[in-house]
Amino acid sequence: MATLDDIARELGVSKSTVSKALSGAKDVSKSMRQNVLEKAVELGYSRGIRNATAPRVAVFITNMEYSKPEDFGYDIVAGFRKAAEPAGFQVDLIPLDMNMQSRTRYDEYMVFGNYCGGLFLGLSLVDPWIKDFETCKTPTVLYDNHVSGNPNVTDVGVDNIEGMAGAIAYLRSLKHTRIGYLSGALQSHIYQQRYQSYFRAMEKNGLMADADMAASAYHIHECVSVHLPRLLRRGCTAILCSSDLLAHSVMIWCRERGIRVPEDLSVMGFDDIPLCRYTMPPLSTIRQNRVELGKSSFYALSSQLNKVQLSSLLLHAELVKRASCTDAPTDLSRVQNVIK
Amino acid sequence: MATLDDIARELGVSKSTVSKALSGAKDVSKSMRQNVLEKAVELGYSRGIRNATAPRVAVFITNMEYSKPEDFGYDIVAGFRKAAEPAGFQVDLIPLDMNMQSRTRYDEYMVFGNYCGGLFLGLSLVDPWIKDFETCKTPTVLYDNHVSGNPNVTDVGVDNIEGMAGAIAYLRSLKHTRIGYLSGALQSHIYQQRYQSYFRAMEKNGLMADADMAASAYHIHECVSVHLPRLLRRGCTAILCSSDLLAHSVMIWCRERGIRVPEDLSVMGFDDIPLCRYTMPPLSTIRQNRVELGKSSFYALSSQLNKVQLSSLLLHAELVKRASCTDAPTDLSRVQNVIK
Repeated sequence: MATLDDIARELGVSKSTVSKALSGAKDVSKSMRQNVLEKAVELGYSRGIRNATAPRVAVFITNMEYSKPEDFGYDIVAGFRKAAEPAGFQVDLIPLDMNMQSRTRYDEYMVFGNYCGGLFLGLSLVDPWIKDFETCKTPTVLYDNHVSGNPNVTDVGVDNIEGMAGAIAYLRSLKHTRIGYLSGALQSHIYQQRYQSYFRAMEKNGLMADADMAASAYHIHECVSVHLPRLLRRGCTAILCSSDLLAHSVMIWCRERGIRVPEDLSVMGFDDIPLCRYTMPPLSTIRQNRVELGKSSFYALSSQLNKVQLSSLLLHAELVKRASCTDAPTDLSRVQNVIK
Repeated sequence: MATLDDIARELGVSKSTVSKALSGAKDVSKSMRQNVLEKAVELGYSRGIRNATAPRVAVFITNMEYSKPEDFGYDIVAGFRKAAEPAGFQVDLIPLDMNMQSRTRYDEYMVFGNYCGGLFLGLSLVDPWIKDFETCKTPTVLYDNHVSGNPNVTDVGVDNIEGMAGAIAYLRSLKHTRIGYLSGALQSHIYQQRYQSYFRAMEKNGLMADADMAASAYHIHECVSVHLPRLLRRGCTAILCSSDLLAHSVMIWCRERGIRVPEDLSVMGFDDIPLCRYTMPPLSTIRQNRVELGKSSFYALSSQLNKVQLSSLLLHAELVKRASCTDAPTDLSRVQNVIK
């Protein structure tokens, strides 16, 4: 890894100039600062943790709420802080938008901001920095995303394959054989993974799962109003959803039409967001333990900083049984009346 | 998790009897000890780390050499010790055979031995305890094996998918388009994974890979003497192997027949065992960083003991370029003469 000396030598300036430039001191010209910055990125300089009194790490958040305890991101951030702060790290939360990513390359942003590492929550596959992660020099942890082949990047998440297998096995144990799957847009890494895992789990359980037993759409409304009736017409007695919010919308749609959950239709979500305990009925789901995800994310980052380069770290997915699933109905007439 | 009190209450004996029985004290009868042991296993008792002065962890080893620095297992064990011992753990190395596994259930063995957790190196899918891992209560880490659905078990290994992708992309960059794959017996989890990853990586690189471009056999001899000539007859200019030892045998077979490695045939291994630097020519391979694997295994175990239940933890796989691979040959006559 490049040092301040390397940058100074390459540019033919003093080490103190480089140091000042990187720390944003006023007595270094703007153009010199830019030169130093570019050279630092080119050489793969990243701020070490040893020399810094309070090394800084950045938690970037996009497409995810995190400010209140009932938000999905809240506990992840809390878990991360709980592990990082006692270890002497300063944690900055940074809301991330597309503009910011288009304006500055990721490594530049990190060198400029004096960050020794970053955690990303909520990125989608269309975010511009996703491309940067293939080659970035900064120790980086991606929650629920996957980049292969860059030793500086670690993926953290729950074991979606295990989670999906648990969900299908559970519904199967309740005698459901026609289990439909509704998913959010497949431009997210985890939604892709869950989608594939659904088919694998169905097959493993000897259940029918052609492509028409699953559907995805960007808008929850489309998923529920267009695809749900289609799945019900195919005789599905259980609907598994890629997220709890989607499952909740399915339950509301059913209630509005007199379809009883779980008597007429079992509904299951994924994630176990705080809302699940309070839906009507309370939602069965697959838990992502968010505090543990946050702690594990810090472990993955500190592992990188200590040169143990993890590729991925997955938590166990936990089946949470609540009231939204029960034995498969023998009488399908109520559902059939609604959708006929 | 069950406590000594729980066991005592269930059996209607005193807590001190339970404690003595579990620690193997002489003044507890053999039958009482057996009762306590069985109840302990039934209730999911496992020795906590808080109450023990030097908590003991077991490293079970089978099908893997580990006593000398040039052995594959040596550095994994060293890395594990390096992390575990400063943390106050006593590490016992236990050679594991089939008899031992058939005689005693895994959880019983661990309660009986006063172990708070175990690491397994070298297990194959036919080992009897593999079945026990689906339901075991003891915090357990499996190197290069996979068990889904038990929160008490974590898999540790390198990212084989990434490693295979790196190997194929590297050979492709050397203009090889016909890349054959030789594998050890597919009763090992990692050999299965590497086998599948080979086909995926070939496809991703737009290269031909029907089932006949790959072969597996239990005996290295069969792989090399039966399958290698077949692959060469199909025009392969590079042979990728599931292990370094297999690749080494391929190189010896070639040398004995006047096929030059790498001029006539590129050969690549997997694992980077210490031998690879000294083969003739030195072997290109995918590195498993064994010290880091050992350290990460301890992290995974201590994470279990602290109730952060990881499903899997994978290290980055690293491409190591040595002299056994070069540009694809334009003249195939020397190889064709040997195998005609």
